[in-house]
Amino acid sequence: MAEALESNRTRAQMKDIMQSLSAGRFVSVRRTLHTLPASDVALVLESSPKRTRDELWELIDSDFHSDVIEELSEDVRNGIITQMTTTNAVDVLGQMDTDDLAETLSSLPEEVLASLLRSMDAQDRQRAEQALSYGEETAGFIMNTDTITLRSDVTIDVVLRYLRLRGKIPEDSDSFYVVNRNDTLIGRVPVTRLLTEPAEALVEEIMDDEPEAIPVDMHDGEVASLFERYNWLSAPVVDDKHRLVGRITIDDVVDIIREDAEHSMMSMAGLDDEEDTFAPVLQSTRRRSIWLGVNLLTALMAAAVSDLFEATLSQLAVLAILNTIVPSMGGVAGNQTLTLVIRGMALGHVNPGNSRSLVSKELAIGFLNGVIWAVLIAAVIALWKQDYQLGIIIAFAMMANMIAAALSGATLPIIMKKLKIDPALAGSVILTTITDVVGIFAFLGTATLFLL
Amino acid sequence: MAEALESNRTRAQMKDIMQSLSAGRFVSVRRTLHTLPASDVALVLESSPKRTRDELWELIDSDFHSDVIEELSEDVRNGIITQMTTTNAVDVLGQMDTDDLAETLSSLPEEVLASLLRSMDAQDRQRAEQALSYGEETAGFIMNTDTITLRSDVTIDVVLRYLRLRGKIPEDSDSFYVVNRNDTLIGRVPVTRLLTEPAEALVEEIMDDEPEAIPVDMHDGEVASLFERYNWLSAPVVDDKHRLVGRITIDDVVDIIREDAEHSMMSMAGLDDEEDTFAPVLQSTRRRSIWLGVNLLTALMAAAVSDLFEATLSQLAVLAILNTIVPSMGGVAGNQTLTLVIRGMALGHVNPGNSRSLVSKELAIGFLNGVIWAVLIAAVIALWKQDYQLGIIIAFAMMANMIAAALSGATLPIIMKKLKIDPALAGSVILTTITDVVGIFAFLGTATLFLL
Repeated sequence: MAEALESNRTRAQMKDIMQSLSAGRFVSVRRTLHTLPASDVALVLESSPKRTRDELWELIDSDFHSDVIEELSEDVRNGIITQMTTTNAVDVLGQMDTDDLAETLSSLPEEVLASLLRSMDAQDRQRAEQALSYGEETAGFIMNTDTITLRSDVTIDVVLRYLRLRGKIPEDSDSFYVVNRNDTLIGRVPVTRLLTEPAEALVEEIMDDEPEAIPVDMHDGEVASLFERYNWLSAPVVDDKHRLVGRITIDDVVDIIREDAEHSMMSMAGLDDEEDTFAPVLQSTRRRSIWLGVNLLTALMAAAVSDLFEATLSQLAVLAILNTIVPSMGGVAGNQTLTLVIRGMALGHVNPGNSRSLVSKELAIGFLNGVIWAVLIAAVIALWKQDYQLGIIIAFAMMANMIAAALSGATLPIIMKKLKIDPALAGSVILTTITDVVGIFAFLGTATLFLL
Repeated sequence: MAEALESNRTRAQMKDIMQSLSAGRFVSVRRTLHTLPASDVALVLESSPKRTRDELWELIDSDFHSDVIEELSEDVRNGIITQMTTTNAVDVLGQMDTDDLAETLSSLPEEVLASLLRSMDAQDRQRAEQALSYGEETAGFIMNTDTITLRSDVTIDVVLRYLRLRGKIPEDSDSFYVVNRNDTLIGRVPVTRLLTEPAEALVEEIMDDEPEAIPVDMHDGEVASLFERYNWLSAPVVDDKHRLVGRITIDDVVDIIREDAEHSMMSMAGLDDEEDTFAPVLQSTRRRSIWLGVNLLTALMAAAVSDLFEATLSQLAVLAILNTIVPSMGGVAGNQTLTLVIRGMALGHVNPGNSRSLVSKELAIGFLNGVIWAVLIAAVIALWKQDYQLGIIIAFAMMANMIAAALSGATLPIIMKKLKIDPALAGSVILTTITDVVGIFAFLGTATLFLL
């Protein structure tokens, strides 16, 4: 009888493995690892600190290595392959499908890749070079070449007899493709249609005539959004002469959809999307330091703006105390707009035709926000510091900064996209610099004019 | 001949529609809208400001309304349904599949839902209530009930004849399910296997015996991660007695995968994941104000900490100028750790067994970061302000805050998850409060001790 999946199954197994490992029951760990599907073993490895990960890897049967490697995330996979002997690595790579091989090889460091290619036999090397020949992040890079093709002038009966003879069909085939003598794609037959149409019908009578096809050089993010928009399970890939060269299946696309969606979040925090949760300390520190360095520069720039008002600050310590409020609110409001626009661009909602109305809308929100928070902060400061003039000054600064925040949050990603800079990566830091500088300048500047 | 997809096709069509609309060529707009698939029409609506959206909606044929509504995101969909007359809305809902109906109804405001249910005929109301009977965000909520089931004791030949008689099979059926007399799920037959196995074989001979099944009350996020991990195209859903009640297909899951991945990014900026890119100004302002209000409180809290050191600040204006640097660096470093841990938890990498080593790793990174940035900032300040003692004080504060940032970035999401609070929603604001308070306290406190 079928078992319903226990929701905590994986977690229980993982706990089990970790306990056995730390108790030194290696035979038991090995046995458990071999009852799990490759994707679960990959999850166990990704959830382990470096040292445990190495111990576990040793306990996995080498026949199983390539299946597990295919399921690992880039960072973890590279760590493991780089540690393997060249012979072992070549062996593991030889067992992979073309699309997995391409992905694995392309992410390896140059030297490792070169040394692996040198050690391969001619046939494997050719296959590897072919896999790498399509650019990274293209349809060609993620496609499989195991497509079953049909001719248009045969009957369903003939097709069924051919399939029975052939035996194995890749389980995720939801359609067969119809090509002519030049391999040009001319039609598509859903597998289910072979089951429901009369056996004597010709393929050309039951096929969909003009199947949508993906050009081999299309960007993978675009492939993913097509799959998502049209609910495809698979799609044919064609070269520039409309010859069928492979097909892409939804399971390859799901990874891209997740990576694309995560990319913005990780980039906005200055992290690499493939960052291994348990990456070595030195590697993580080095990677994150670029972002911290950029932030130090912007923090120093904000300090330099305050420095212009040293005379004011030395006379009125209360300004120093309140100096962070306006920049902080501007930063949060600006980041809300920025995040919304970046997400809107990723979903394809933002285009040249509507960006002006998007900017106006965000400006209107910024203006309203400005009014609300200016009134509130004025009241709070007037009560707290018993100084209504100070309240009016901070309210003015808040108003100015909220509008600056909305304007930069909405326009920055649009401008950066035109300049081909990734807004998720640099947008947030530029925005914060603007809201810091405008906020400090507006607050201390107005205070200098009216209070001194 | 098959056309390769033009990558800018949608954008060109959209521009075309907008131009025709503003030129008042409504017939042409209507014609273009009817040549597009429903998902493209949905994209056009989502990319339009409110007023244009309403105009476009009027131009879409009412037969097409329910197809388009199914493809819209929640916010936009609710806006449109709420504006329809009850009769029209009931009509549109009546044409939907069960899973789309459940999703649409559950996101409507209470009053609208109640009024729609009242206006439905008995049969439609029953179907709607059934669709809503499974909780939101469960497997039951996203499943379809159009499953084709087989008996185990018939031959493939009989199955094929039955399917030919039946005619239409849902195109995304990659498997048929085998049930016994009590509807208990006992097996699974991939569609392709019907094509390759001999016609006289019995279903029970070719079926997979113990297919993994999803309990009807499993959380949809967990369903999505199972699909992602095991590369499923569809999966059977069973009730607590292992009776087959429906199936879930990958296209429903893809939306959940994207929403889950986006949820963290949007929440971290204090936005709703379903936020319409072109939401009305007042609605957006109201939604975003909660987050800005929380931030105002934390900014005031940071100001209150500075306020404790008013005497120090009034004597040394230079401290006021440098006061924002340490909190800012702590905020960025802490958010890096926080984002990494939140992503790790979403991917299932973080569990009770490894959280201690994750925290130690992040602490080590925090310590290293502390050393690097403390030395750098000390040098910058010593040179800029010609005051090496001030450099040492700010270095100390930086060190303390980097460690506090790493500790809170790593432990906050773990603690919050235990308390069932969404770390993506509240983690960032709590973290920033901590790094602000610690940063200001460490810097001004040390300065008060040593410089006065």
